[in-house]
Amino acid sequence: MKNIFNKHFPNSMKGLILKEFDKGLTVEDLAVPQPVKGEVLVKIDSAPINPSDWAFLRGLYTSPKKLPVVAGFEGSGIVMATGNDFFSRRLLGKKVACFAPQNGNGTWAEYTLTQARTTIPLKENLSLEQGSMLLINPLSVIAIISIAKKKGSRTIANTAAASALGKLLDKMCKQNGLQCVNIVRRPQQVELLKKSGTQFILDSSSPTFKSEMDNLFKKLNVKIAFDALSGTMVSQLLASLPKGGEVMVYGALSEQETIVPHGRFIFEDKKISGFWLPKWINEQSMFTLLQSFKKVQKFLCSQHEIQIRNRMSLAQVIEGLNTFTENMSEGKILIKPWQYLS
Amino acid sequence: MKNIFNKHFPNSMKGLILKEFDKGLTVEDLAVPQPVKGEVLVKIDSAPINPSDWAFLRGLYTSPKKLPVVAGFEGSGIVMATGNDFFSRRLLGKKVACFAPQNGNGTWAEYTLTQARTTIPLKENLSLEQGSMLLINPLSVIAIISIAKKKGSRTIANTAAASALGKLLDKMCKQNGLQCVNIVRRPQQVELLKKSGTQFILDSSSPTFKSEMDNLFKKLNVKIAFDALSGTMVSQLLASLPKGGEVMVYGALSEQETIVPHGRFIFEDKKISGFWLPKWINEQSMFTLLQSFKKVQKFLCSQHEIQIRNRMSLAQVIEGLNTFTENMSEGKILIKPWQYLS
Repeated sequence: MKNIFNKHFPNSMKGLILKEFDKGLTVEDLAVPQPVKGEVLVKIDSAPINPSDWAFLRGLYTSPKKLPVVAGFEGSGIVMATGNDFFSRRLLGKKVACFAPQNGNGTWAEYTLTQARTTIPLKENLSLEQGSMLLINPLSVIAIISIAKKKGSRTIANTAAASALGKLLDKMCKQNGLQCVNIVRRPQQVELLKKSGTQFILDSSSPTFKSEMDNLFKKLNVKIAFDALSGTMVSQLLASLPKGGEVMVYGALSEQETIVPHGRFIFEDKKISGFWLPKWINEQSMFTLLQSFKKVQKFLCSQHEIQIRNRMSLAQVIEGLNTFTENMSEGKILIKPWQYLS
Repeated sequence: MKNIFNKHFPNSMKGLILKEFDKGLTVEDLAVPQPVKGEVLVKIDSAPINPSDWAFLRGLYTSPKKLPVVAGFEGSGIVMATGNDFFSRRLLGKKVACFAPQNGNGTWAEYTLTQARTTIPLKENLSLEQGSMLLINPLSVIAIISIAKKKGSRTIANTAAASALGKLLDKMCKQNGLQCVNIVRRPQQVELLKKSGTQFILDSSSPTFKSEMDNLFKKLNVKIAFDALSGTMVSQLLASLPKGGEVMVYGALSEQETIVPHGRFIFEDKKISGFWLPKWINEQSMFTLLQSFKKVQKFLCSQHEIQIRNRMSLAQVIEGLNTFTENMSEGKILIKPWQYLS
């Protein structure tokens, strides 16, 4: 092991532990693990609460992780120690974004032990806070755009479009020559998006939503919709898409099941499929992924700042989680493990 | 117009008219239409009641047909008159299978006026009764096999497998080097299929259905399932298919909507899509279609006889329709417009 700790390798750290699904978190003291070959130990600066974390905490997310476990799927920080191999060593002392390991403790802790190969050095001028949200949302956006392009779609639709992912998706679509129809759930979100220059916005709470969606989908030739909500939204999207249209479900914020009349499949040749980032990542070459990260970092440095609505210490998260689903469109909650406010 | 009527072109004919969806049929007198270029007039010998007819009568089928209209999507008979073009004339006097025209009166009548290009001469040794069921089921079977092969599947599953289509599908799968898992809804149907030599049978009414399906799908590497039922069967199939699996819905015999938990799409990369014969036909070349009909006729002449459970005159159908959903696995009901039993 190589490390840059001043004197001693630390003995213990604090982390937010999930012991049982849907039963909240506790702050606990844990041993600091030592990296072996291919691993890095990251001192976490910031870690966002993403919808996938929220789903995981509630037991609604498929993951090989066994409980109890430290929560948190991504974060940023400084690599303090590495395995003694070339691939890991090159990251020592670097400012990085990292994924939690597939199977072990996550990023909502003072330190995270993870794989060197999914740890990305951050550009000089990208902050650790912005960098902590580099992997899951931006990569999802890149994946969605790449899937749409492969299917020959010049226009897509996206739901829960006032989310951090939604806002980034709309902007990156423009940069990639695609149009995006942004579907939000409240009139306030329409105003919010309008102010930030979003062009095509639909409000699903409006009484004329269905006909507006029909018209806009027709006008813009929308053949594929990406959905973060599940439930009734999927059937509404399917109804408005033209024959041969496809809904790709990537989230379930509504926590509802989807009910679909069979005619959509039989007579209208429509499809429901899914998108899940870990699977997409597994299918990409390391080169594609590195290119993607470069692209996203450049974009975040120069053209888009992910909004942050709140920063919380580990202790604050225990209560603060309850506010996660409120005002999601106002930005991300970032966890700051080294802040000791309670 | 060319015709082979002895003396006079007939003035009127009887047909089964649908005036309003889900309100039954009436026998009415209609003018006999005269074929123009590209058209043929078929004196109907036999016309089956297919599940698609049943769905159409109840208003559950997408069709451009405007009411009132003569029902019936396919049939067989003798071409009595044709337009005066080469393509139509070559069919004059021939024993044929025919589709109803897309937009007009169907085959449940003494005569049907239809397109020459979707009228298929029958082989010498194929009976008019067997030939009347040549188009919809056998072509669906060929389409299903061709879709499965294109997707690289060596094994498929099919529901409502005791139906005429199901029995034919299992046999033609074997002939094409594919395996078929046949899912039926009653123990009696298991016995029926076993007797006729079907190898892989599952009974969805059995308490161990789910685990049996899990095991058999795994053992045989089933990645695609074709479903004629819709409703809960779709979610059961999706649950048993491996990651990346697909359910293609082609019928809705259960008349239920499908409820699917989002995790099937997001985490398991599963898909629901649809299969509809008219769309498949439109995508095929005339050559492929003719080859398909040759193949099916040969198969029906030598290796498979479609079971017939009942023959009905036009008048008998009015009451007899009520028995359509009973004992479907015992064979087809054939309508005989020139039989005057009441």
